[in-house]
Amino acid sequence: MIPVEFQNLIAFLDIFAAVSFAATGALVASRKGLDILGFMWLGVLTGVGGGTVRDLVLDAPVFWVVNSQYLTICLITASIVYFAAPRIESRYTLVLWFDALGLAFVTVAGTAKALDYEVGALVAIIMGVTTASVGGIIRDLIGHEPSIVLKQEIYVTAAALGASTYVLVEGWNLDWLHPALAGFFVTFIVRALAMTFNWSLPGYQRPASK
Amino acid sequence: MIPVEFQNLIAFLDIFAAVSFAATGALVASRKGLDILGFMWLGVLTGVGGGTVRDLVLDAPVFWVVNSQYLTICLITASIVYFAAPRIESRYTLVLWFDALGLAFVTVAGTAKALDYEVGALVAIIMGVTTASVGGIIRDLIGHEPSIVLKQEIYVTAAALGASTYVLVEGWNLDWLHPALAGFFVTFIVRALAMTFNWSLPGYQRPASK
Amino acid sequence: MIPVEFQNLIAFLDIFAAVSFAATGALVASRKGLDILGFMWLGVLTGVGGGTVRDLVLDAPVFWVVNSQYLTICLITASIVYFAAPRIESRYTLVLWFDALGLAFVTVAGTAKALDYEVGALVAIIMGVTTASVGGIIRDLIGHEPSIVLKQEIYVTAAALGASTYVLVEGWNLDWLHPALAGFFVTFIVRALAMTFNWSLPGYQRPASK
Repeated sequence: MIPVEFQNLIAFLDIFAAVSFAATGALVASRKGLDILGFMWLGVLTGVGGGTVRDLVLDAPVFWVVNSQYLTICLITASIVYFAAPRIESRYTLVLWFDALGLAFVTVAGTAKALDYEVGALVAIIMGVTTASVGGIIRDLIGHEPSIVLKQEIYVTAAALGASTYVLVEGWNLDWLHPALAGFFVTFIVRALAMTFNWSLPGYQRPASK
Repeated sequence: MIPVEFQNLIAFLDIFAAVSFAATGALVASRKGLDILGFMWLGVLTGVGGGTVRDLVLDAPVFWVVNSQYLTICLITASIVYFAAPRIESRYTLVLWFDALGLAFVTVAGTAKALDYEVGALVAIIMGVTTASVGGIIRDLIGHEPSIVLKQEIYVTAAALGASTYVLVEGWNLDWLHPALAGFFVTFIVRALAMTFNWSLPGYQRPASK
Repeated sequence: MIPVEFQNLIAFLDIFAAVSFAATGALVASRKGLDILGFMWLGVLTGVGGGTVRDLVLDAPVFWVVNSQYLTICLITASIVYFAAPRIESRYTLVLWFDALGLAFVTVAGTAKALDYEVGALVAIIMGVTTASVGGIIRDLIGHEPSIVLKQEIYVTAAALGASTYVLVEGWNLDWLHPALAGFFVTFIVRALAMTFNWSLPGYQRPASK
C-alpha cells in the first residue's frame, strides 16, 4: 500500500502534470486555429489520456471519474491558453520546461500506482511510460502533428529510464520517498539535458549499400 | 436509477444513433474505395466506438457485448451503404441531418448513463461528449480525414451544450423526460442552426504582429 | 470453460503472435529511423495492442499484466530487429509470412477467449477481428502509414472469415481442437492465397456518371 502522505503527494503531482499536459494540448489547438471548445477538448484528452489508459489496464477506477477536479483543471488551463496564447507561445521554451516537470511527475505517479496494484516490475515501467506518453500521442494524432514517438528527441526514453529507476530503488525496500525522488530526478535530468544539448539516441540508419 | 421506460427509450435511441454513425463510417469507406469488409469494420468502429470508451471509463459492461444487436445494426447499415452508396452520397445533406439526430440521441444517452453510475456533473458532461465524438474521431483517424475536432463547425460544441443542459435540468429533480427532451433539443437545434447558417465559433487567431 | 491443454496452446500461440506483430511494429520503426527505445515502444504497442482492447472490452484481466513475459518477448523482438533490420528487411517476404501465421494464431486465440467469456457469436467474431487488427491499426496510425484497414489486400477479411469459421465449428459441440484448427487454417490459407495471388475484394467504385 502506498502510504497516505505519498498518496497526497501523488495527487498534487497529478494536478501539476494535468496542467502542463493540458497546456501542450491547448497549444496544438492554437496552432490549428480551433475555437475555445476545441482547446478544451484537446486539453482534456491530452491532460488525462495517459492516466486513463493506465487505470483501464490496471482495472483501477479512472482517476478523473473519482475526482473530477482533474477535468476542471484541464478546462481552466485550456481556457487560459485560449486567451493568453500569444504570450504563452512566445514563452514556448518555458512551456517545454513545465512539460518536462510534468513528464517527471506522471512517470513517478504512474509507476507508483501500478506497483500499488502489485503488478510486476516490467509492467510497472510500461505503465509509467504509458501515463507519460499516451496523452501526447493522442494529442499529436488528432492534431495531425508528427507523433512524439517518431521524434528523435529523448522523451519516451526519459520516462522509461525514470520509471526503471523508480522500480529499481523501490526494490531496495527503502521508504516511499527515495524511489519517488530518484525516479523524478532521473526523468527530469535526462529530459533537461536532452533539451539543453539537443541530445538524441542514434536512430536506425538504413545501410547505404542497399 | 434510470426508470425502465427511459432505459427502453435509451435503447431505442442508441440503435438509431448506431445506424446514423455507422452510415457516416461507411461513407468514409466509400470515399476511400474500400471493399465490403472495410465498410463493415469502419461502420462498426464508428458506430460503437464512442459508447465503448464511455462504458470502459464508467466500468460498465460494454453495451454491445451485453446486446449484440448494435453490432448487427452497424453491419447491416454498412452493407446497405456499400450497395447503395451512389444514391446515399447524392443525398449527403440528408445523411448530415440523420447524423445530427444521432448526435443529439447519443449525447442524451451518454450523459444519462453516466449520471446513472452516480458520477459528478462535469464527468457526466464529458461522458456525453465522449459518446458523441469518439466514434467520429476514430473514423477520421483511420480514414486519414481531418478530424471532427479540427473542423471549425459546431459539432463537439453542440454535444457539450446539450450534455450541460441535461445535467442542469436533471438537477431540478423533475422526472426523467424533461432533462432528456431539453438535452436532445439543445444539441439538435444548435447543430441544425450551425449546419443551416454555417455557424462557427471564432477560431484562435495568431496575432498579426508576430 | 476452455480446457487446460487448449489454454496452454493459446498461451503458446499468443507468444508466437506477439513476436510476429512486434516485428512488424519494429520494421515500421526502422522505416522511420527511430532510436532503439522507439523500436521497443512501437514493438510493444503493436504486439499487445489488439489483445489489450479485447481484454478491456471483455472485462478480463489484461493478459500482459497477468503475465509480463509477453512484454519481454516484444522488447526482445524489437531489439533484435533494431540490430538486424537490414537482414530482416531484405527478407521482408519472410516477415509477411510470419505475420500471416501470427494473424491466424491471434484470430483463433481472440475468438476462443471471447467465447470463454460467454459472449454471443457475433461479439466473439468481432473480438477475433479486434485482436487481429487493432495492434496493426495503432502501429500504422503512430507511424503515419496507410492503415491496414484502408489497404485493398485481404487482411481484416481473412481474420473475419477465420473467426466466423471458429464460431461455426464450435457450435457443433466437437472438442476444442476442431474449431481451433478450422479457424486457423481458414485465416491462414485465405491470407496466404491473397498474398500469393495479390487477391483483393472489389473496392467500392464511385459511379463514372457522377
